[in-house]
Amino acid sequence: MIMNNINKTISLESGAGGEKSSELIAQIRKNFAVNHKWKNTLDDGASYKIGSEKLVFTTDAFIVDPIFFPGGDIGKIAMCGTINDLSVMGAKPIGIALSLVIEEGFPAEDLQKIMQSIGKVSKETGVPIVTGDTKVTEKGKIDKIEITTSGVGLAKEIINNGGAQAGDVVIASGNLGEHSVVILAKRFNYTTKLKSDCQPLTREIQSVSKYLTACKDPTRGGAAAVLNEIAEKSKVKIVLEEDKLPFAKETVALSELLGIDKFSFPSEGRFVATVSPKNAQKVIKILQKFNPEAKIIGSVKPGTGVHLKTRLGGTKIIDTPRGKLIPRIC
Amino acid sequence: MIMNNINKTISLESGAGGEKSSELIAQIRKNFAVNHKWKNTLDDGASYKIGSEKLVFTTDAFIVDPIFFPGGDIGKIAMCGTINDLSVMGAKPIGIALSLVIEEGFPAEDLQKIMQSIGKVSKETGVPIVTGDTKVTEKGKIDKIEITTSGVGLAKEIINNGGAQAGDVVIASGNLGEHSVVILAKRFNYTTKLKSDCQPLTREIQSVSKYLTACKDPTRGGAAAVLNEIAEKSKVKIVLEEDKLPFAKETVALSELLGIDKFSFPSEGRFVATVSPKNAQKVIKILQKFNPEAKIIGSVKPGTGVHLKTRLGGTKIIDTPRGKLIPRIC
Repeated sequence: MIMNNINKTISLESGAGGEKSSELIAQIRKNFAVNHKWKNTLDDGASYKIGSEKLVFTTDAFIVDPIFFPGGDIGKIAMCGTINDLSVMGAKPIGIALSLVIEEGFPAEDLQKIMQSIGKVSKETGVPIVTGDTKVTEKGKIDKIEITTSGVGLAKEIINNGGAQAGDVVIASGNLGEHSVVILAKRFNYTTKLKSDCQPLTREIQSVSKYLTACKDPTRGGAAAVLNEIAEKSKVKIVLEEDKLPFAKETVALSELLGIDKFSFPSEGRFVATVSPKNAQKVIKILQKFNPEAKIIGSVKPGTGVHLKTRLGGTKIIDTPRGKLIPRIC
Repeated sequence: MIMNNINKTISLESGAGGEKSSELIAQIRKNFAVNHKWKNTLDDGASYKIGSEKLVFTTDAFIVDPIFFPGGDIGKIAMCGTINDLSVMGAKPIGIALSLVIEEGFPAEDLQKIMQSIGKVSKETGVPIVTGDTKVTEKGKIDKIEITTSGVGLAKEIINNGGAQAGDVVIASGNLGEHSVVILAKRFNYTTKLKSDCQPLTREIQSVSKYLTACKDPTRGGAAAVLNEIAEKSKVKIVLEEDKLPFAKETVALSELLGIDKFSFPSEGRFVATVSPKNAQKVIKILQKFNPEAKIIGSVKPGTGVHLKTRLGGTKIIDTPRGKLIPRIC
């Protein structure tokens, strides 16, 4: 992909979380040594057996604009992103490595706010920051601040995304896309009462993880990207139902206003999962204690792809997002 | 420190690897949850016992200018930096998480070169890149490319920096500061035949690790910073001898030309260590197979601080670098 690109430079589309992203990653991966002790290397995190435990390892870079937004800031999102990547794999996060690149002249007060926000998630979840790096760069080398959080966690069993089975139901832990709506609204000076959904999912997932056959957090590329990933890896078809969609009215409105499919809106504190029908009601009941909007949104069938069954009985295919659909917000 | 800063913004001095860096880090750490299962959290990496193994976890952010330099590039330095942080703690690196932030329009050819260089270190050391993240940002949000490498490794025994004992000798694995010289020379259009010392230290350290009582790689802040760290944590005095200094002539010349203490020049593929005198010759002999310049550079005494015994019999104190001594080069 990289060298076929007509202008021979890296484009924003390559980093937007859709199909071009996957191509860029595949290209990048070709050069590396392989160690077959590592599993799940194409998942949210990779896993490695140590004794009777599975170590899960993940990383995420965050440049967010604006860095403060209703419901959070870059620090909160960086912590939640990495904690959630470990959590959706069924791991208990045990430690975070925090890397900061800060532009010279960045307000000390803003840095303190971000650190307090990181500290708050750390304390709430009991996940310590155990190591880190701080670089301060000359003005213009970076826009304000960049945070990379890497995380390690331990799991007895990995929830992998190839585990969805025909017959399972598809659930959402709450309404999706609200982080996206808040950030877009702030950029376009559009007024919304919604708050970012940014939050750690550790306890929510741990309370139901033994029932989940697949689990992903719909960050970059939104539900469209992660449901397609589950369908592809599990070799199944996912059918969503239009009258059970996990979106707030304002999310639907902004989606229509901007002409962007709501399924591609990222969340930063939600997950979608598949679960055997016999456990579905139990799982929903537990999840609704955390978020009353948790619900069944569809079902798993033999076949391929992600389909939306409309109210009128039609079918719409929901593809993995391609190109630069929305400004990068995570 | 942060809020006492008169102009209330983050300054370059805070990230230069000297005393201000430590203050910034201490300030940042205050906010976080603590888990006493983690050890060595103020070292190059933190460690956590899993079964009979110790997991070591580390992270490092790299913005390098220029991104290509004699002897390496940002990809090589990012891999070596993290592999070396694990290695100096006595751990065998088992996997790297690679996070890239790339500016839109970055030449695809340059990205491929960097990836090949990362792949080369990965294959040479047998350390796979097991997970990663790639973000592409709008122009101006980042200068070209930023790489954060995080690493996990396994150790039977951690080499911690508080282990140096009076009576030990101090060794250097080769001449120091040459990465720094090459980068500074390129910035100031100064001609040098030296190449960056940037290289993975995995095999070198593994071949002698059981003999080392303390070990550090002198990156930011150079030998001055890491020898002071060893002296402080081990509660000993380190005495270096002027006629055994580990510097090439050109390093000394550039140091004098720029008026910067050569002990503060960073290396990216060297280590300094302490070792019991009975093992010293054995260790040096092994290390000289990797680098003929490996040698004893001083000794450990009761007391505090790092002292340089001059040829004329005088003593000079080598302090931890303070402020922004040299342009940030790693």
